[in-house]
Amino acid sequence: MPSTKAVAPLKDELDIVIPIIRNLDFLEMWRPFFEQYHLIIVQDGDPSKTIHVPEGFDYELYNRNDINRILGSKASCISFKDSACRCFGFLVSKKKYIFTIDDDCLVAKDPSGKDINALTQHIQNLITPAIPFYFNTMYDPYGEDADFVRGYPLSLREGTPTAVSHGLWLNYPDYDAPTKLARPLQRNTRYVDAVQTIPKGNLFPMCGMNLAFDRELIGAAMYFGLMGDGQPIGSYGDLWAGWCTKVIADHFCLGVKTGLPYIMHSRAGNPFVNMKKEYRGMFWQEEIVPFFHSVVFPRECTTVQKCYIELSKMVKEKLVHLDPPYFQNLADAMVTWIEAWDELNSAAAAAVAPVDNKDASSSADTQESESWYSNYIESCLGRIRIDNLSKRNSQRFHYTKLNQYDE
Amino acid sequence: MPSTKAVAPLKDELDIVIPIIRNLDFLEMWRPFFEQYHLIIVQDGDPSKTIHVPEGFDYELYNRNDINRILGSKASCISFKDSACRCFGFLVSKKKYIFTIDDDCLVAKDPSGKDINALTQHIQNLITPAIPFYFNTMYDPYGEDADFVRGYPLSLREGTPTAVSHGLWLNYPDYDAPTKLARPLQRNTRYVDAVQTIPKGNLFPMCGMNLAFDRELIGAAMYFGLMGDGQPIGSYGDLWAGWCTKVIADHFCLGVKTGLPYIMHSRAGNPFVNMKKEYRGMFWQEEIVPFFHSVVFPRECTTVQKCYIELSKMVKEKLVHLDPPYFQNLADAMVTWIEAWDELNSAAAAAVAPVDNKDASSSADTQESESWYSNYIESCLGRIRIDNLSKRNSQRFHYTKLNQYDE
Repeated sequence: MPSTKAVAPLKDELDIVIPIIRNLDFLEMWRPFFEQYHLIIVQDGDPSKTIHVPEGFDYELYNRNDINRILGSKASCISFKDSACRCFGFLVSKKKYIFTIDDDCLVAKDPSGKDINALTQHIQNLITPAIPFYFNTMYDPYGEDADFVRGYPLSLREGTPTAVSHGLWLNYPDYDAPTKLARPLQRNTRYVDAVQTIPKGNLFPMCGMNLAFDRELIGAAMYFGLMGDGQPIGSYGDLWAGWCTKVIADHFCLGVKTGLPYIMHSRAGNPFVNMKKEYRGMFWQEEIVPFFHSVVFPRECTTVQKCYIELSKMVKEKLVHLDPPYFQNLADAMVTWIEAWDELNSAAAAAVAPVDNKDASSSADTQESESWYSNYIESCLGRIRIDNLSKRNSQRFHYTKLNQYDE
Repeated sequence: MPSTKAVAPLKDELDIVIPIIRNLDFLEMWRPFFEQYHLIIVQDGDPSKTIHVPEGFDYELYNRNDINRILGSKASCISFKDSACRCFGFLVSKKKYIFTIDDDCLVAKDPSGKDINALTQHIQNLITPAIPFYFNTMYDPYGEDADFVRGYPLSLREGTPTAVSHGLWLNYPDYDAPTKLARPLQRNTRYVDAVQTIPKGNLFPMCGMNLAFDRELIGAAMYFGLMGDGQPIGSYGDLWAGWCTKVIADHFCLGVKTGLPYIMHSRAGNPFVNMKKEYRGMFWQEEIVPFFHSVVFPRECTTVQKCYIELSKMVKEKLVHLDPPYFQNLADAMVTWIEAWDELNSAAAAAVAPVDNKDASSSADTQESESWYSNYIESCLGRIRIDNLSKRNSQRFHYTKLNQYDE
């Protein structure tokens, strides 16, 4: 008897990465949404502990011993006793897309009381274009119930490819320890029914508990840094990855979206424990954020990997004074991460490939750069060719040539 | 017997400006929310027609004869037969805040079915700070039910003063004529429960039908251009004002917010008529938007008026080729507008006053510029002093000096 289940979207192109230090009980609630996908479980903490995976899920599980075995000396770049270890899952995945979620994230309900399929919304966010150059006041113009408003330039309405989809949280908001202490009773009940692109040039605090991205486009930048055991800081892995990812996405004119989907965040975390992990980060971020605002990559940075290596050099030059041993190690670990990425992803690494400028000058893509909007994409054209996108018409770079309509 | 009515917020500090070509019947629906405020009605079209103002409203009404009489030869800068004429109301107001609304905008309902008091939400948006430097993923952090999320730099949490509050529309969205024609049945039913700051450096399409602003901070930039009768373009006045306002707000590190409140937009407008008004604008905006993206004001531009005059020069230099007679006239009208503004607002013009750099260097404000975040406000400090803000603690420029907490 054939199954009556609908096939889940992109089920063969997406991995769900879960860092785990407790148990996987939360998966039961996600079963209807996750069971057709492949899970990559990264077991944090004591590798001798056995993690029970609920029946019926397709998964691979890595503990610290596996990480050490697979990466050898490069395993030093993967954090221990911190959810930053999740980026090991990004490294070993062979899929185009990643969705990552924490074990304290449950299925949220929309205002009508219906369970929210977070994964489907993330996929929708990732496969539709982003609009990093100009704000649309009706938010996402690619949904069924909205469009571009009056005054939105026609030649920007095709958008750019989306690299990241950042989802939000009902119940416990993602506050830092001092804010949690100051607002112990506050819960997020505000369902904001919108998805939007974080504009080019703007940074945001990325949270890793409900996050999806296009691994082929931006995966090599999704490194969660050195956190937790043996490090002077914890819980900043997602923020670090968000800052790095955003400046690199901006360099390639890729979109970073935030908003829907919501998950239900069921645990606040102990603010006193968090305070100890976070307090250096709260000082450092006062310099780290302006640092990222000042990042400009040279044109020679034609791949995400090249950008990331360049960024590691900038970290050495400009952030080391905050804590010399830590930021030296972090900058070195960033290089190690890219070495590991290239080792494990030689095929995927070619997806974003440099284009020879001379060749490009005779191609159709470069003709498009003659449009009035060429100043926006100057930083993209002739630098990268995103091969896999040429097949997906809706996500191609396309700029209206208005003069073709002239009398 | 004393009235039992609650006093409306800022009722002596805010004018409601309404451009009108039909009638004011829509005011009946707004009576509970508007009746304590002063209305400035700008009658468009035939001045011999009598406009009936519903009983009980406090108002002043100007028709074209009044505009000509008050402004003399400078009246040429005020559009005729286009809602752009509303900016005459901004000019003659003596209040700190303006709310402007169209006659086809009715009271909307929130998802719970309750009437939305749009004006109260605009006031809330205007009197709380904005966050143009870094995105907060929970949107407005100054409401009761949200705060800054983890990873938000402490020294940016005081925000900057808010200059503009841009509200949205349920029912008929603010689409251009081609989009209306392509989606004749689409209505906006999506209530997005959020207010946010449009980041510094980013532009947006500002709609004038549900808009509020701080007239003392930014009023001189709220000029709606030359539209309608005798002009080759119509319906672009609000977009023009939005682009000018945003680049000037960015120059002074003032905030521009969008989102709540919603009004109910009851009429679509005839797309064929609109097409005729808008089509040149749709071509021109392909160059106008990149032009505004490229605008940088010199440090000598220490007032909104100086910025605006500078902008008129840039228009002459860089946009005139699009339609030489029109953009020449527009640039000249921009200068005329500022002359009229200064004539009618000599007191208000002093509110944003230049500060002598040498004096400022010994003041407390300049000491604050030594914080790590001085790079963000470099363009503000030592350039303007916003006198009226020093009284309102919540809106003052304030930057945490983290080193004061150092061991």
